[in-house]
Order: sequence, then structure tokens, then C-alpha cells
Amino acid sequence: MNEIEQYIRVIQDFPKEGVLFKDIATLLQNPKAMQLCKKQLIDLVGDQKIDKVIGIESRGFFFGTLLAAHFNAGFIPVRKPGKLPYKTISELYDLEYGTDAVEIHIDAIKKGERVLIHDDVLATGGTANAVCKLVERLGGEIVQCNFIIQLDFLNGKEKLKNYTIASALQY
Amino acid sequence: MNEIEQYIRVIQDFPKEGVLFKDIATLLQNPKAMQLCKKQLIDLVGDQKIDKVIGIESRGFFFGTLLAAHFNAGFIPVRKPGKLPYKTISELYDLEYGTDAVEIHIDAIKKGERVLIHDDVLATGGTANAVCKLVERLGGEIVQCNFIIQLDFLNGKEKLKNYTIASALQY
Repeated sequence: MNEIEQYIRVIQDFPKEGVLFKDIATLLQNPKAMQLCKKQLIDLVGDQKIDKVIGIESRGFFFGTLLAAHFNAGFIPVRKPGKLPYKTISELYDLEYGTDAVEIHIDAIKKGERVLIHDDVLATGGTANAVCKLVERLGGEIVQCNFIIQLDFLNGKEKLKNYTIASALQY
Repeated sequence: MNEIEQYIRVIQDFPKEGVLFKDIATLLQNPKAMQLCKKQLIDLVGDQKIDKVIGIESRGFFFGTLLAAHFNAGFIPVRKPGKLPYKTISELYDLEYGTDAVEIHIDAIKKGERVLIHDDVLATGGTANAVCKLVERLGGEIVQCNFIIQLDFLNGKEKLKNYTIASALQY
């Protein structure tokens, strides 16, 4: 068993009935667990050059900046519509009912830059896949989609099959 | 002049007309600027013991986890209502029109723990003051309210007069 698993709190019926939510707040509030998780996320990337790390709003921000600082890369937030103040491009993605969108600043990534995408959880992969498209539209090269937790039964791997994915924990 | 100032982008009329928004995205996307800003925020705290670092949703998350990792402290997100999955307490605060609220998990801070509060910008101080009250209700001791940018003309210092505040840049 991966040691960090014991620090993740499982919450029933959040954000809606029937969902077992994996809460990383209990991991973050424990300094030892946070450092251990940081190390595992770094090890997933290995010895690769990274120019930019993207954190996906908003739980991807927590370890996103830690990864960026470690790799001496810039940090880029990808956010929900209307949150970023400068010019953006956006990508729609499907939800169970309806669609949502993610946005990135148009000057966030330069052509040819090597990009690491990070989020806390890989579920259906809809958001991460939309983020990959944003990166590609700006000319970036996706090195890895990096997650703390991968929910295998939601098959996000399939949606991200064109990209390298890595996660510390699988359920 | 503080070297990090040149990395902050000023955007007119965001989020509403008449506001000159200080955008730290341009600082975060530059590795050198991010490391420099991180160092300055750490230096503002100095050689003090910190048990928990709070990052205020959501731009306070960026440097919040970096500060937590540096001080070997736990990281605690304070969030808008309904975003935290476990049991919370909340504090209302006044906006220009109406009120808003912030929430913290009830088990985030233990009695007597030394807490550093971080956000990107100190404006009117309404949010930070509400966060201070949350920390005190959980029995925490506030070491410092720590900001990248302090907008002096909005007089947030007055609202936080019972606390130690520190910021890298003042406007």
C-alpha cells in the first residue's frame, strides 16, 4: 500500500449522492504527508526538463506550484470561465449533464515549451483532456498528465490515451 | 523598487469597471520571479515556528503551499461556501453590496497551533479578517497575515489592526 493513502479522507455523498469523495485536505494539513506526496509526484515525472507546470482549478493549484518550484518551471493556472483577468482561450468539455469550460491565458505557454499538467484527481478525464487541447493550441508539448489519485473505474485513461499519464494512487 | 513589481501585470477594469487589477499570473509563469517572490514572502515571516499555513481561495493557494512546504507546516485551504467536503465553520464578511462567507474545516487547526495566513492581495481586509476569526474560533494563534501586495488606499491595515501584517509590495 502506498503510504499516502492513509492520509486521504473519504467522504460519502460529496459533492452529490452516491459519490465517495477523496479529500486531500487531510493530506495537506499533515506536513509529513504533504512532503511525501510532493516527492511521489516529482518521482512520477523523473529527470525530465519541464518549462511550465499547469495546475487545474482549484485543487490542482496545491501541488502545482510545488512541482513548478521543484522543476524550476513557471506555474500556469487553468481556470473556470471568467476567472483569469487577461486574454484567454477556452475549451468546452462534457459533463454528465451539459458542458463546462476551462480557460488559459494566451501568453501562458510559448511554442515548443514542455508542459506538465497536474490535478489532484483523474476521474472521467474530461477536464484534463480539455486542458491538453488548450496546451496544444498554444503550441506546447505535453510531457505528462500528473495526478495524485486516479479513479480507474471512470476510465479517464481512455480519454487521455494520446498522452502520458501518471498517478501516485489508483482506485 | 522591489524587483518583483515588474513581473506583475496591471489590468484595467477587472473584475469590474474602475478597478486596476494586479495580475500575478505573469509573476507565476516566470520561474525566476516565482522563486524571488517565494523568498520574499518567507523573509517576511523570518525565523518563526509555523504549524499551519492558510491559503485563501484561490490565489492564496499558489504561494500558500510553497510557504507551508518551506516551514514544514501543514497547509489549510480556506474556501468559499460549499467547496470544502467535510464539516466546516464559516464567517460572514461585508462586500460593497451584500455579504460573502469563508469556510474552514473544523479539524484544520488544533488549539494553540501557530498559524500563518497568506493571500495574494490585501485590499479592504474583509476576507482576511474573517479568516482570522475562523482561526481564533478553532483556538489557533495568528503569527502573521502575509500578502504579496498591499493596496494601501483601501485601508485593509485598519481592519486587521489586531494582527501582524506583512507584504512584499505596497501600492
